[in-house]
Amino acid sequence: MSQQPPEPGFHMSSEEFRRWGREVIDWIADYHERVETLPVLSRVEPGAIRRALPEHPPEQGEGFERMLADLDEKVLPGITHWQSPNFFAFFPANVSYPSILGELLSAGLGVQGMLWTTSPACTEIETLVLDWVVELLDLPRTFHSSGAGGGVIQDSASSATLCALLAARHRAAEAPAEALVAYASTEAHSSVDKAMEIAGLGRDRLRRIAVDADRALDPAALSAAMAEDRAAGRRPFFVVATVGTTSSLAFDPLDAVGAAARAEGAWLHVDAAMAGTAAVCPELRWIHRGLEQAQSYCFNPHKWMFTNFDCDCFYVSDRQALIDALSVVPEYLRNRASESGQVIDYRDWQVPLGRRFRALKLWFVIRHYGIRGLRAHVRRHVELAAGFARWVESHPELELAAPCRLNLVCFRHRRGDRASEDLLEALNASEKLYLTHTRLDGRYVLRMSIGQTRTESRHVEQAREAIDAIVSNGRLPGSA
Amino acid sequence: MSQQPPEPGFHMSSEEFRRWGREVIDWIADYHERVETLPVLSRVEPGAIRRALPEHPPEQGEGFERMLADLDEKVLPGITHWQSPNFFAFFPANVSYPSILGELLSAGLGVQGMLWTTSPACTEIETLVLDWVVELLDLPRTFHSSGAGGGVIQDSASSATLCALLAARHRAAEAPAEALVAYASTEAHSSVDKAMEIAGLGRDRLRRIAVDADRALDPAALSAAMAEDRAAGRRPFFVVATVGTTSSLAFDPLDAVGAAARAEGAWLHVDAAMAGTAAVCPELRWIHRGLEQAQSYCFNPHKWMFTNFDCDCFYVSDRQALIDALSVVPEYLRNRASESGQVIDYRDWQVPLGRRFRALKLWFVIRHYGIRGLRAHVRRHVELAAGFARWVESHPELELAAPCRLNLVCFRHRRGDRASEDLLEALNASEKLYLTHTRLDGRYVLRMSIGQTRTESRHVEQAREAIDAIVSNGRLPGSA
Repeated sequence: MSQQPPEPGFHMSSEEFRRWGREVIDWIADYHERVETLPVLSRVEPGAIRRALPEHPPEQGEGFERMLADLDEKVLPGITHWQSPNFFAFFPANVSYPSILGELLSAGLGVQGMLWTTSPACTEIETLVLDWVVELLDLPRTFHSSGAGGGVIQDSASSATLCALLAARHRAAEAPAEALVAYASTEAHSSVDKAMEIAGLGRDRLRRIAVDADRALDPAALSAAMAEDRAAGRRPFFVVATVGTTSSLAFDPLDAVGAAARAEGAWLHVDAAMAGTAAVCPELRWIHRGLEQAQSYCFNPHKWMFTNFDCDCFYVSDRQALIDALSVVPEYLRNRASESGQVIDYRDWQVPLGRRFRALKLWFVIRHYGIRGLRAHVRRHVELAAGFARWVESHPELELAAPCRLNLVCFRHRRGDRASEDLLEALNASEKLYLTHTRLDGRYVLRMSIGQTRTESRHVEQAREAIDAIVSNGRLPGSA
Repeated sequence: MSQQPPEPGFHMSSEEFRRWGREVIDWIADYHERVETLPVLSRVEPGAIRRALPEHPPEQGEGFERMLADLDEKVLPGITHWQSPNFFAFFPANVSYPSILGELLSAGLGVQGMLWTTSPACTEIETLVLDWVVELLDLPRTFHSSGAGGGVIQDSASSATLCALLAARHRAAEAPAEALVAYASTEAHSSVDKAMEIAGLGRDRLRRIAVDADRALDPAALSAAMAEDRAAGRRPFFVVATVGTTSSLAFDPLDAVGAAARAEGAWLHVDAAMAGTAAVCPELRWIHRGLEQAQSYCFNPHKWMFTNFDCDCFYVSDRQALIDALSVVPEYLRNRASESGQVIDYRDWQVPLGRRFRALKLWFVIRHYGIRGLRAHVRRHVELAAGFARWVESHPELELAAPCRLNLVCFRHRRGDRASEDLLEALNASEKLYLTHTRLDGRYVLRMSIGQTRTESRHVEQAREAIDAIVSNGRLPGSA
C-alpha cells in the first residue's frame, strides 16, 4: 500500500489513515464531551445546509482536512444532537464508545456476511450474541438457537415486524391471501400498517383493536374481533402485541393476548423496540410476562442499550418458517457449507441479501458493561423518570397523561392543548433540551423520554427548571 | 463525562476512548497492510468460532484490551477477507480509508435521520450527494432532486428493487392485484423473486424472459410476453432490466426494453448494482444507454465505489409515487417542517423508519478521490479484467464462457464441468485467492471478479500463475 503516492485521487495511504483516524477519534471524544453544551434541536432553515456546500462533485480529490473543517462549520449546525444528555425526544438512539469502536472495526474489516461461508465469524458471533441476549433479558428458551428458533440482527423493528408478518403469512399459506386478517392495538406502531401495505395485504386488513384505560390492548376485544372475522370466513393469521407503545409506553398483556392468538392459530409477534432493554433488570421483567407464547419478538439495542443504530434483535421460535418465507437460492450463492445444513445463512432471515458485521458492536457493548453495568444504567434512567413523574404530579400547572412505568413520562399542561403546545414550543426554542409530543385521547401531550447514555440527574433537574420557568412566567395561554 | 470512574460496567471514559480508538485505527491500518498475506477464504469448520468463545454473557464488564485480543485470536480465523486484493469472488464489497472514517463519524454523531427535522444535515447532505452522483455517472436529469424525482440511500439493491416494485404497484392500483405481472430476464437477480414474494404477488407472477446469445434480455420476447398477459386480462406493471447481471455481467438493452415497458405502461426499474459505478468513465457510459426511460434505478457504491456496505443509491423519476406507496404518518412523527412540504423525510422512501447518516461516507469518498480519481481506479480494474480475459483466450486449457465487457471474466476448463469444479476447489484451497462460480447454459463456470480497492496487476498475475499451475499439473480430470 505504501507504493501509492499520497496525491489527491489516489488511495489514502495507511500513514494518512492513522493520522486522520486519530483526528477523527479525538473529534468524536471532543464532540461527546461538549455535546451537552450544544443546542439540542437544529434550528436551520430548510435548504440552508445544502446551500452552504458545493453544488457539484469535485474534479480533483480533496485533502481530508477539508472534510473535517466542513464537519465543524457546515455539518454541525444541521445536526440535532441525539447523543446530548438533554435529548428527551422520541425514543433514545443511544450510543456508547465501545459500540462506536465495534462499528469502526466492522467498517475496517469490511466483510459481507450474507452467507456463513463469506465470513463464518460474522454469522457465528451474531448467533452467539443473540443467544447471550436471550440470557441477558431472560427471554423464552424457544428463541435460543439451540432449539428450533433463533435470533438475527435486523436494521430496525419495522423490518423485524415485516419479516414476522411474512413468516406468519407463509405459515398460513393454506388460506387464500384475501382472507388473511391481522390485529394490533390502536396504539401499536405505524410499522404494522406499513408492513401490511408492503406485503400487499393492505392496511384495511389490519384490525386496530381497542385499548383499556392504560392503553393496553384489550384481549376480550381482540378475541371478539378474531371470532367475527373467523365467522365471516376470514383467517386471523397475525397478532402484534406491543411491549411499550411509542406514544405512551403502554404494555399489552402478553399472556392474555397470546392465549387469544393461540386459540385462533394466529402468529403472535411482540414488538418491544424500546422497552425490551429493561428486561436486563430482573425487577422489570414483568414487561415480558407471557412472552413464551410469542412466535416472534424484537427489541432494539440501538434505542436503549448503548449500541449504534442499526441494531434490532429479532427472534423467532421456528426459524424454518422465516427461512421458508424468505429464501431464494440462485446458483452463484450455492456452496458446500450451506448445503451441509450445518450452518446459518442469515441472508434468508431478512429482506436484503447483503449484511455487515453488526454483531461486533453489540458484543462489545455487552462485554464492556457486563450484565451488572447494563442493569445499573437502565435503573438510573428508570429512577430519573420516576422522579420526574413525581415532580409533574406535584406541580400545580402540570399533570401526568399516562402512568410512568419505565422511562417515559407523558404529561400536559392542566390548562389544555394550547398551553401544552406552547410549552413544548418554548422548551425546544430554548435550545437547552428537546422533547416531542403525541396525542392521547385526542389531547396534546408532551413526552419526556429518558434513555440517553449520559443523561444524569442534573440534566433532568435542568429540564424541570426549564419547564417550571416557562409554566410559571404567566405567558402561556390561560395562565394567570 | 470525566466524573465517571473508569471501572468495568461504567461508561468508557473519553480518555479511554481516545486511547482505544487509536489502537483500533492502528489495528485497521495494520490489517489492511497485511490482509493480502492472509488466507482469503476462511476454512474453519462450522461451529469452531463459537466454540472458542464464552457461551454466556459476562456478569462484570471487561476491559477493551480483551476484545482486541479476541479479534486477533478468535475472530480473524473466521473472517473471509473481502478487503484482500486477492478476493475475486462474488462481486466486490470494496472499502476505502475515507469511507471508514465517514462510517466512524456517522457512528460517533449517532444521529437518526428518519425525518428532516431529526437532523437536517443528514437529509440535505444525502440529497446533495445523490445529486452529485447524477452528475458523476451522467444519469438522466429526471433522477435529480431539482425535478419531480430524486435519490435516497438504501441498504442494498434488494431493498431498492422492493421499493421500486411497491411504487410500481401503487401506480398500477387501478388494476386488481391478482392481475399484476412483472418481468425480468432469466439472468436477473434473485432479489426480484424475493421482492415479488414479499409484496405478496408471488414469484409465479414474475415472468422470466429469455435472453439472447449475450445473455441480455430479448426485448421481442418481453413484448410478446406482455402482449400475451394483456390479452389474457392481466396487467404488465413492472419490468426489471439489469445493467450487469450477477452471473456473467450481461447488459440488457435499456432503450428497447424501455420502449417495450412504456408501450404497456409498465414501470421500468434498472438494477445496476455492481456495474453502475463504471459510468464514472465517459467511455463506459454505454452501459446506461436508454436509462432515461427508467422510472427507477439503483447501483451500489458499496460494491465497486470504495464505500462501506451498506450504501445503495436508489433513484426514482417520480418521488411522489414512492412516497405514496410507503408513507404512514402517526401523530408522534408530525412536525412543522414536514407539514411545510419544503423538506424531504426519507423515512417515506424506504422500508425501515430509522436511518443513520450514511451519506457521510459516500460524500467523503467522492471528495477524497474526485471524479478523476474514481475514473482512474475503475479503469485500472477494467484493464486488469481485459488482460486476464486475453490470457484465458490464449490458454490452451481454458476458455471464456462469456464476453468480458467490464471487470468480470467468466471462464471454464475446456475439459468440462468436472475439471472446472476441481480447478475452483484447488484454487480456493490454496488460500492465496478466492473465486466463486456460476452456471451458464447449464455449464459450470468460474468467475474472476476484479474490483477490490487494492487489486493491482501483480495480484491478477499471481492469480494467473496459480490457475496455470493447477491446470498444468495434470491432476485435473481429463488432463493429459
